[in-house]
Amino acid sequence: MPTSSLPKAVRKARREAAVEHLEELNDELAEKRKAVKKAAKEAAKSKPSALLVDVVAGEGPAGVKVDDGAVDLSAVSPDSTPGFEGSKKDAAVALALGERVLSELQDRLYAQSRADAATGSVLLVLQGMDTSGKGGIVRHVVGAMDPQGVRITGFKAPTDEEKKHDFLWRIKPHLPAPGQIAVFDRSHYEDVLIHRVRGWAAEAEIKRRYEAINAFEAEAAAQGTRIIKVMLHISHEEQGERLLERLNRPEKHWKYNAGDIDERKLWDDYQDAYAKAIEATSSPEAPWHVVPANHKWYARLAVADLLIAALRDIDPVWPKTSLNVGAERARLAATRD
Amino acid sequence: MPTSSLPKAVRKARREAAVEHLEELNDELAEKRKAVKKAAKEAAKSKPSALLVDVVAGEGPAGVKVDDGAVDLSAVSPDSTPGFEGSKKDAAVALALGERVLSELQDRLYAQSRADAATGSVLLVLQGMDTSGKGGIVRHVVGAMDPQGVRITGFKAPTDEEKKHDFLWRIKPHLPAPGQIAVFDRSHYEDVLIHRVRGWAAEAEIKRRYEAINAFEAEAAAQGTRIIKVMLHISHEEQGERLLERLNRPEKHWKYNAGDIDERKLWDDYQDAYAKAIEATSSPEAPWHVVPANHKWYARLAVADLLIAALRDIDPVWPKTSLNVGAERARLAATRD
Repeated sequence: MPTSSLPKAVRKARREAAVEHLEELNDELAEKRKAVKKAAKEAAKSKPSALLVDVVAGEGPAGVKVDDGAVDLSAVSPDSTPGFEGSKKDAAVALALGERVLSELQDRLYAQSRADAATGSVLLVLQGMDTSGKGGIVRHVVGAMDPQGVRITGFKAPTDEEKKHDFLWRIKPHLPAPGQIAVFDRSHYEDVLIHRVRGWAAEAEIKRRYEAINAFEAEAAAQGTRIIKVMLHISHEEQGERLLERLNRPEKHWKYNAGDIDERKLWDDYQDAYAKAIEATSSPEAPWHVVPANHKWYARLAVADLLIAALRDIDPVWPKTSLNVGAERARLAATRD
Repeated sequence: MPTSSLPKAVRKARREAAVEHLEELNDELAEKRKAVKKAAKEAAKSKPSALLVDVVAGEGPAGVKVDDGAVDLSAVSPDSTPGFEGSKKDAAVALALGERVLSELQDRLYAQSRADAATGSVLLVLQGMDTSGKGGIVRHVVGAMDPQGVRITGFKAPTDEEKKHDFLWRIKPHLPAPGQIAVFDRSHYEDVLIHRVRGWAAEAEIKRRYEAINAFEAEAAAQGTRIIKVMLHISHEEQGERLLERLNRPEKHWKYNAGDIDERKLWDDYQDAYAKAIEATSSPEAPWHVVPANHKWYARLAVADLLIAALRDIDPVWPKTSLNVGAERARLAATRD
């Protein structure tokens, strides 16, 4: 906005950057609009596809929730898109629609929290192997909501201080307050996943942790927190391709760690640790969802849908004021210019 | 996405909601695309308006930064749009462009933080009278960035525990770590604004606080934090209209507090307290910006521009890897399917 005082060459470079950004934006909008226009036309004819209605209904994607019994991850194809028969383009429209619904529901929940009227909250736990797309979910799904009222915590390797305490000690302060949506990018589950695979904890200790987790989550649920636990399920092959992409593109180098290959070599052990953990900690009040994630567009749509379902369950409404609105209008009128 | 098991009436209502959302989305996209297409065409002809180049250049909006000397808020029209001559529609295109630039710069900063290569951070302090648009800035400008790496703190009235400590005690833990962008929705400035207006602190104590703030901010700046302090400057009349809107629309009732009118009656005292605080705490390393905010679209664009300028000053680049990429490719190849 200012009259620039920059050197001519810098100004030229930035002008070119502006042109490029605008053309990209134009192309993106054109494509998005085409798809939405088509869907809107269909919808106006009272024939919206089941997909669109169901995203708004937000009952969660069919076929990803883990119920009782043994978990067999090898039986779930990471390429599949349970409950969704559309194409990638259809998914983009559905996600755009889902984001609007999500955003509106969360606005109401946030309003309730500000009016001290909130009784519910949401906790989204994201787990998955390296490259499974946790960051993309945070950016594209969680990012669609008003950042006020959303708390994201990335759990890395614990610090020395954190190691001195029980494994849940560092987790508890990040649970959502009423009206909040908390997102865990990795979580307390690392303590029963990498710890099992690496043998950092004995079998008996892992079992103790499962029980501690179940008690912890049951308590949070009893206080009104809707808990959504998601394992982003990718294939070994897909991980190989995503890691290669990180190596091939310099702007993605920062995402690559040499340790990723060491973990990758333990793939089967991790799949086994996930299956055992999911089996031991899936409960009606804190169910796991195995979300096929080879298609990023599917995983994002599925998680958006899970969030919508949780918010619909809370059913937040605009909080009613206890004030006499007419009297307040009169007070305000007395101050007007 | 699931085959719904909901009652027919509920399904019908949600189908209708889906149709409505899609039509709205279609209209919004159509309007946005029209404006962007026009701007892209102009830009492709090598004649991008100064506006577009300047937003990308991001040197901050001209004419809002407070330099030395006395501050006279009555001399700044809340209706003005310093440094920007376009319409509301032009501003929408400029903001869309600005959000892309902002998002890209922040991605790089976040990447640096993850690679332990970050040396800079940003602190955005938002102050302004009730209804001045702080929440809208958080939602629409801050919300354009990846939520990972952004920390938003809303400072409300201090708790009993917080009151036992010095006023900066509760602020310090929320300063940004290297690579982070921290946003304060209200801040330590409340302790020299409402405290002055309400007489909760004596003149000498207010002066002590100015000095404490200056020392605190100078220290943060010395550690690499770019500090942007914004006063969203609205008129008394505009506030009256926005408060009335909150009373007139039930979904906005939660934003209205009876105390807002009490504060409004002290308008002139607040303007005076702001002027004094800005005068006492504007410094080259932590300048204030008085952003006219009667036009929300201008204020958002101006704050986006200030953030871009701060990030350009840090100039984050994709962190270089210290790994031997070829060797890592070979390690990866050995694990592929």
